[in-house]
This record gives sequence, C-alpha cells and structure tokens, in this order.
Amino acid sequence: MKQIKLKLDKRSYPISINSDFGNLAYQLKKLNLPNKAIIVTMESLDKLYRVDLIDILDKGGFNVFIEVIPDSESSKSLSQLNISINNITRHIGSEPFFLIAFGGGVVGDLSGFIASIYKRGVRYVQIPTTLLAQVDSSIGGKVGIDLETGKNLVGAFYQPELVYSNISILKTLPDRELQSGMAEVIKYGVIKDRGLFELTESLAAREEDTLFNKIKPGIEEIVHKCSLIKSSVVSRDEKDSHGIRAILNFGHTVGHAIEAASNYSESYTHGEAISIGMLCAVEVSNKLKITKEDILTRLESLLGFYNLPVVMTGINTDRVISAFWYDKKFIKGTPRMVLPVKIGNVKIIDDISMDVVKEVIKGRTR
Amino acid sequence: MKQIKLKLDKRSYPISINSDFGNLAYQLKKLNLPNKAIIVTMESLDKLYRVDLIDILDKGGFNVFIEVIPDSESSKSLSQLNISINNITRHIGSEPFFLIAFGGGVVGDLSGFIASIYKRGVRYVQIPTTLLAQVDSSIGGKVGIDLETGKNLVGAFYQPELVYSNISILKTLPDRELQSGMAEVIKYGVIKDRGLFELTESLAAREEDTLFNKIKPGIEEIVHKCSLIKSSVVSRDEKDSHGIRAILNFGHTVGHAIEAASNYSESYTHGEAISIGMLCAVEVSNKLKITKEDILTRLESLLGFYNLPVVMTGINTDRVISAFWYDKKFIKGTPRMVLPVKIGNVKIIDDISMDVVKEVIKGRTR
Repeated sequence: MKQIKLKLDKRSYPISINSDFGNLAYQLKKLNLPNKAIIVTMESLDKLYRVDLIDILDKGGFNVFIEVIPDSESSKSLSQLNISINNITRHIGSEPFFLIAFGGGVVGDLSGFIASIYKRGVRYVQIPTTLLAQVDSSIGGKVGIDLETGKNLVGAFYQPELVYSNISILKTLPDRELQSGMAEVIKYGVIKDRGLFELTESLAAREEDTLFNKIKPGIEEIVHKCSLIKSSVVSRDEKDSHGIRAILNFGHTVGHAIEAASNYSESYTHGEAISIGMLCAVEVSNKLKITKEDILTRLESLLGFYNLPVVMTGINTDRVISAFWYDKKFIKGTPRMVLPVKIGNVKIIDDISMDVVKEVIKGRTR
Repeated sequence: MKQIKLKLDKRSYPISINSDFGNLAYQLKKLNLPNKAIIVTMESLDKLYRVDLIDILDKGGFNVFIEVIPDSESSKSLSQLNISINNITRHIGSEPFFLIAFGGGVVGDLSGFIASIYKRGVRYVQIPTTLLAQVDSSIGGKVGIDLETGKNLVGAFYQPELVYSNISILKTLPDRELQSGMAEVIKYGVIKDRGLFELTESLAAREEDTLFNKIKPGIEEIVHKCSLIKSSVVSRDEKDSHGIRAILNFGHTVGHAIEAASNYSESYTHGEAISIGMLCAVEVSNKLKITKEDILTRLESLLGFYNLPVVMTGINTDRVISAFWYDKKFIKGTPRMVLPVKIGNVKIIDDISMDVVKEVIKGRTR
C-alpha cells in the first residue's frame, strides 16, 4: 500500500494505492463520514463487485445503496444525472449520506458532478477502476457531464475526500482500455518524469501473453508516480487558472480535436486520440526548435509498442483542424500548446502559427 | 443611489440600489468583464425591457444576446437548463462571455446555477426585478433548480459580481408579488432590525390606492436595509455552515412545509407561506417562553395590513406536519427553528418538541 496526500489546505485528501479492497473500510472510517453510502457504478462493474463491496462496507458499519448506470459513454448526460439524483432522493429521503464513485472516467465525472450539486454539495469518494481513472481523472476534482453542444460543457471543480485505487482490478480491463490508460501514463513521463517514461519503455519490451501481464511488475509504481505528478500539479493550480495544470494538456489540444472530429465515436478512445496528439505536439515542437533531443522517434516507437495509433485514418483533416480552432484552450485567437523540451520537461507556448499546426496534422493523416 | 459591499475576501461584490438603469453600464464596466453579455430573462420582462437594456448595454460597449425563458416557476428545471445552455453555446461558440440574470427568483436561481456550472464557472451579475429578489434571493449566491423529487434539490453557492437593484421596476409588479416580498421584508425586521419593522408598520398605515404607492416613500430604505442584513449574514456564513445564515430561515421551516403540502401550487406564494410560518414560529416561541414581548398580536396585524394570510385554509394539516419532518433543516430527528426573543432579535433552537409544533400548526388551520 502506498499513500499520497493531495494538498489543498482544508480540502486536502489522501490517494491510497492498494492491491485489493482490504484497506477500504478503514480508510473510509477515518473520514468520519455519514454511515449511509451511495455507490454509483456501471452495470458491468456492479455484476463483478457488488457482493464484495457490500460485504466490505457492511463490515465497516456502512449502510449501502447502489445506483447502477448503463455501461456507456452516453451516461455522462443530463438525463442520466436526473434519473440518478431522483433515484438517490427516493431512496435516501432527507438523511445524510456520502457518495462513492466506483468506476472509470464516466462514473467518476458523473458522480462527482452529482456530489457537487446535490443539495449544494455532498461528500464523496473516488474508487477508480480503470488505469485512466486511477492515474488521471479520479484525482483533482474536475467533474462534469456532456451536453448536446459540448463535451464536459457543464461541470465543477469539486474535490473528493479520498481516492482509493485497487490496481488488481485492472486485470479485468479490456486491452484497448488498458492501452488507452498507458497513453496518459506516457504523457506523465514526457511532461514530468523521465524515469517513468523509461519504466514504460522497459515494460514495453517484456514478452508476455497479455498487456496486463506485461506491465504488471511496474503497475504499482506507475499508478503511484502518475498520482504524485497529478497531485502536485493540482495542489498548485486547482482551478486551472495559473498555467500550471495546463501542462497536463500535453497531447490533448490535437487529441480533443481528433475526438471531436470523429464525433467521440468508438474510432478513437481518449488515449488513442492523445497518442496521435502527443506526436503532433512533438512535431510542432521540433518545427519551432523547442525540443532539445530526439523525442519523436522514441515516443513513436513506445506508443507503437503499446498498440497505440501514431497516425489517424478514416478521419477528415479539415474537421480536425476546425475542431482544434474551436477548442476552449485557445488564447486570443492563436493556438496554445504544451510542447516538450526534452523527456520530463515541457513548455506552454501561446503564439503558435496555425499553418504549422495544420501541416503537422495533415502529415499525421493517412 | 446607495451602495453596499458584500464582503467575501476576493469574491466581495457591490450591491447597488438605484432608481433607474442609468448607472448600470458604468457599474458593469468597472468589473472588467468580457464584452459579450448574455442576458437570461423571462418573456414578460423581455417584452417590457428588451429595447432599454440592449440600448444601455450597447452604449456601454457590450455585445448582447438575450436568452428568454418561459414565464413560469417550472422554468427552474433541468430541461430548461439544458435548453438555455445549448442556446447559449450555439450563439457564443467558444468566446468568453458573462451572464446577466434579469428577473425574479426563478431567473436568478436558474441563471446563477447555469453560471456556476457552465465550463465549470462563468462570471455573472444579478439584476433582480421583484421585491423578493431585490431583498433576498439575488444576494448571497444560493442558486439552484428543482427536480422531480425536490425543490432546490441541486444547486451551488456561487456569488455574482454585482447585484444591481432598480427599485422603480417594482411598480410594474402585481400586488400579490409585492405582498409576497413584504413578507420577507417583515422577516428581516423581526430577525435583525426593529427600525425596519416599525417602518413597515408606518407604511402599512398609509392610505394609498395601490400597494406600491403605499410603500413607495420607504422602498429605497427597505431594499437598502434588507440588503445590508442579508450581506452581513452571508459574509459571516457564506455556505450556511456556522448557524449564522440559518437565522434567515425564520418562518421558513413551517413556510416550506406549507408550500410542499400545497405542492408548490398557486394557493400559497413563498411570501404567503412564510407569513403563516412566521406566526407559527412566534407561537412556538411563546409556548417555550422565549419571547420577551407580545410579538404575536403586532406581527399578525402587520401581516394582515399587507394582505398576507395569517391562517391556512384548504390544506391538509397532516401533510404540512409530515413535510415539516422531511425538511432538510432537521437536526438529528428533532425540529430546529428560528424563534424570536423580541422584534429585532431571534434565537436558533434545536430541540423543539414535535407536539408543540403540531399543536401550533393545527391552531393555524381553518
């Protein structure tokens, strides 16, 4: 078990990295929460873990109700929010309770947003079950849902009181989801931690039958190191207003544009989109002579090892470029991007010529 | 023009009380807002003030878009929130903007909530157009909407950057709405300001053809004094967590129960419900020997002067009592109420016997 503290004055909270759920009830009891717990989770997870979780929480003295949402990205919606909140209220009446987000990014974002607005705020805990959620989305309090006119269009900054990661749960993840998480892990390596980047390289070289087995010897260190980086960034720039949290967007400006241009379809997972996005950022960095070493070859080969795409296919380049323009990270009409100097070190650059970006995006399209 | 400052460190803001809109553009310009303004308002207000407002803001250098919502209490809903946010996004794209809530409590609560969640928070300003909104709901950042399972079930504490009250706008209000606002004004008198209470008494005695004309000589002082009390309470207890903001709930525990028991129908406006609620609280206070003077006769006669109800009719007492139980202000199973000691001074009492409350509610039912 490893533990990190995300420091935010009175709203500081622990991130606990475990190999099972043995420590969960103890961690919850330390928080002095109401004894009624509402777990929000997805159908597939509910089937796998309902019995275990209820048993653990029951023994810890908690009274549990489970709100199950459909297994779909489209559960991050206003209509699901409405259904879930009404279900919770019908169950709980006016009793005090706390909320547990048990799932990946969709569950964490939806439940965290529910926690932030329910009676103007109830206490909540994140139990992330995907690699992406463990290393990224469960930490830092960015929660929200999608509306017809925009992804994550409404949301809040609302911190959980505990993030409890159980790494053994990752072995049940489909390979594609694990790969997607690895893209974020590699991102952390590039922006802040050369050692982490090299760890992902050495794991990639291992011969194993499954991706989980390949990364297994390093998985605890991976989740720990990424959680440390994310925590440190968030505690210095909780609301993304000081240009510090922005470095987490390495690969995301083009990545989001790819997701938008493919209508957030199954064609590209978030991790796959930022895989291409990171390579685009490195190429822009090369063109602007910001990189001080050959990152491109090394990153491209690493991403390939994890079965992540290095070019985009079947996608309209003009749509990617116009989605890039539209992105909310734009500053005064010129693109802002996070560009690597070397592995472990990035810069935020504001005045990038759109021509350079276009050229790079076109070059990564087949 | 009178100006108050609501003090909340970096989120302090002015409350400006005016007799027209002449000062609005100046006040807005001082805030260094984006130049795109989105006004959220109701149909009836849009018809009356669209031309004036656009003209004023236009001259102030603002680019205005108006989002009109239906004239109804039911506009404080998730479906209206969805419609309005999508309209705003379609209009504004990814440009920066600020929001103006131009209306009564429904507009203020909905727009403030939209401001709090749109892209995790956009800046906003309140221009309250009812007496109730000017003296109460526009100040203090409590925003939210209703869901099927509860009024104000989801919301936020999200402060505006300016509250601009134009008292001349109140002359277009229907009498019933003005009366409803007077109930809140009288509430402020009882909880904090004997002089304000006496002012409402002296205005009540005036012979005039309309309610607006009756209170006209005192209206600026009324809005000013109430805004001062609300500001002072909010700045000491923004999130209603220190038992200070709770005094604003005088008359509201029973009042909310009356509203709930009548399904928030037209039978009782908020002000009418708290009129009866205040009298119930005084009677509880009398029974517990907390009152030090005869408030009951004086308050009952004052409310009557403003055409506010002093007993409830056509309502099921048992429903009122069970709604009272359900109320979120309950502490550990016993009712918490704000009880007057004398005019201008109240106490929060936690362990009130339910029998006393029941008896009082029954005594006020015909």
